[in-house]
Amino acid sequence: MEECKPVLNTGLRDVVVASTKVSDVNGDLGKLIYRGYLVKDLAENATFEEVAHLLLYEKLPDEKELEAFKAQLIAERPVPPQMIAALKTQPRDALPMDIFQACAALLANYDPDVRKPASREASLRMAIRLIAKLPTVLAAFDRIRNNNEPIEPKSDLSHAANFLYMLNGKTPDEEVGRFFDVCLVLHAEHSFNASTFAAREVASTTAHIYAAVSAAMGSLSGALHGGANTRVMNMLLKIGSVDAVEKYISDELTAGRKIMGLGHAVYNVDDPRATIIAPMSEKMGKRLGDTRWYDISEELEKKAKEAFKKRKNMDIFVNVDFYSASLYYYMGIAVDLFTPIFAISRIAGWSAHVIEEQFADAAPKPMLYRPESKYIGDYCGPNECSFVPMEKR
Amino acid sequence: MEECKPVLNTGLRDVVVASTKVSDVNGDLGKLIYRGYLVKDLAENATFEEVAHLLLYEKLPDEKELEAFKAQLIAERPVPPQMIAALKTQPRDALPMDIFQACAALLANYDPDVRKPASREASLRMAIRLIAKLPTVLAAFDRIRNNNEPIEPKSDLSHAANFLYMLNGKTPDEEVGRFFDVCLVLHAEHSFNASTFAAREVASTTAHIYAAVSAAMGSLSGALHGGANTRVMNMLLKIGSVDAVEKYISDELTAGRKIMGLGHAVYNVDDPRATIIAPMSEKMGKRLGDTRWYDISEELEKKAKEAFKKRKNMDIFVNVDFYSASLYYYMGIAVDLFTPIFAISRIAGWSAHVIEEQFADAAPKPMLYRPESKYIGDYCGPNECSFVPMEKR
Repeated sequence: MEECKPVLNTGLRDVVVASTKVSDVNGDLGKLIYRGYLVKDLAENATFEEVAHLLLYEKLPDEKELEAFKAQLIAERPVPPQMIAALKTQPRDALPMDIFQACAALLANYDPDVRKPASREASLRMAIRLIAKLPTVLAAFDRIRNNNEPIEPKSDLSHAANFLYMLNGKTPDEEVGRFFDVCLVLHAEHSFNASTFAAREVASTTAHIYAAVSAAMGSLSGALHGGANTRVMNMLLKIGSVDAVEKYISDELTAGRKIMGLGHAVYNVDDPRATIIAPMSEKMGKRLGDTRWYDISEELEKKAKEAFKKRKNMDIFVNVDFYSASLYYYMGIAVDLFTPIFAISRIAGWSAHVIEEQFADAAPKPMLYRPESKYIGDYCGPNECSFVPMEKR
Repeated sequence: MEECKPVLNTGLRDVVVASTKVSDVNGDLGKLIYRGYLVKDLAENATFEEVAHLLLYEKLPDEKELEAFKAQLIAERPVPPQMIAALKTQPRDALPMDIFQACAALLANYDPDVRKPASREASLRMAIRLIAKLPTVLAAFDRIRNNNEPIEPKSDLSHAANFLYMLNGKTPDEEVGRFFDVCLVLHAEHSFNASTFAAREVASTTAHIYAAVSAAMGSLSGALHGGANTRVMNMLLKIGSVDAVEKYISDELTAGRKIMGLGHAVYNVDDPRATIIAPMSEKMGKRLGDTRWYDISEELEKKAKEAFKKRKNMDIFVNVDFYSASLYYYMGIAVDLFTPIFAISRIAGWSAHVIEEQFADAAPKPMLYRPESKYIGDYCGPNECSFVPMEKR
């Protein structure tokens, strides 16, 4: 019998809540595996569409399967005009993740499978619709808040390139499209992080996938989770120059504050995703003749590692958000869209997990999440309170 | 050292994830306690407003506190016209919980506290806005889908009566208003059920309360959770008469199907809430000269208990959804609104839990929920897969 670890108020760290075939993270070796494949190999060799197929169908598609899958995604890209109308009713300064969380739930209204009996096939169709439509919703939101008309998706572009096209009205060149594609591959899945756990928790009640994904969006919006990439960029903007890095680190550590983009709940080495994103950020900076944001990031990584070693005798590592911030910024994407962009990638992993929660074939099958809590209320000492009528309060 | 219980794929049953001062459920004694007070006492003596105050501020309000709290709620009842405009863009046949989940997130757009630094006071203000506005949103949704204009809230009515007024355009008489009020009291809180757990999980990322409550709505929508009360009513309608009860039970048990409204994840006795709701359903039926739905419920409870004893040698008990279904039906509420009505009550408990997650003063403080999973992927046997280029798949 293993020794019991304390669970109370520790955020379920080290508690193995479920078995999964979707992915594996080895935090000590810095390995992230989607359905058997190293994310490093996938980032170097596969597109987001191939990875989404891998996550949903448990296999890399052959040529025919990929063509069919891409055709399905392309066909599902447009969103109903009522969704655009709903977006137009909301304030121009709305926080993107609030809108995105709402839209994930509203999209259920247009899916005929929501009212049909649950099946793996129906959930896969719904997942494909969510993967295809969320980028369209996000681009439309950004266009509308900038007083531009939304741009219809273009069916001859890849998933990644089409999103940038709908956002900016310009087809990105091949390299930029591929950089964004690699980011989508790298963010697509990461085991039982907070948003995925929220999605599975909601799915465990037999709620449909839209409800689960909307909940995951809420979880992702938190600064301790997906909200971190936006905060990394705001930090870089605040630092402003390579010269200011050392003082910034010193000030933050002295004040006991965290430095965004450093550290991870799981990795004890460099995040394998960060090491792939960093050179893309550098290349983008060079293309634009402005490597400032990459340079600040690089200097920050180096100096922070030294400072943590010296001050705290601890090793610290950059996480996925650290270099993606400057990369997205170079792509001209608004800083507050970084977290929703995380979502348009992670939707692939969320979907795979929801479907596993709904239809896992391995026993024991997942049950409704219903944990226990320890009541520590002491409002009337150790006893229950006697009801006190209004006049005696 | 306690013996370790298996956690894997068991929905965290029996795993004590957190300490809480909000409520306690004793499933063996059939006791439900909100902040020290038995729910039975609260249902008999207190209004929903008093109970919401108890849950949020950890005390029953005195007369002055209650007046101030009611005034705050009343002032926050109206919703921005943009919310009504958004509702009008959506299909008339939308599922109410999808709309409600979306609206909980959209309401964040109108709350100035969302962009301010987090504080207990700000979260309390946001909670009050959610408690006050969600009934207005729900009533407006129901009016709009029936091609009626939404009705403005009336400030001289109680929280319960005002909702029925906004729904039907008629001020309910005192008894009906109080019956609905008691239902709101009884549904306000129930410890770490799936929706509350979802809300806390989302809040643990430091996401705001709207994101957390929207996620909770998604969880509540599931048939294994809040979706059950709608299913109870559909079952009663299908049975149709007292005479048909016995055959219905026999058919369902023989087919291995569940009977809705029977059994609960926590209670091993009659749900203390069900025993309070049953007589209200009976009285409503008598008032209307049509006790059919109550009579079917009563017969179903009796005969199901006998059948479970005889066939399975097990005791079975009715849960909160069993008699609330017929009661709401007698009140003229659409069957698909039963689950959202659960939400307009439970919002009080969700809020108390979110605030506890955000600002618990008892050590250890809650941490970001980030459980572990066990990877069982065997796509390439025990090894990682080597990447297979497209032409070789």
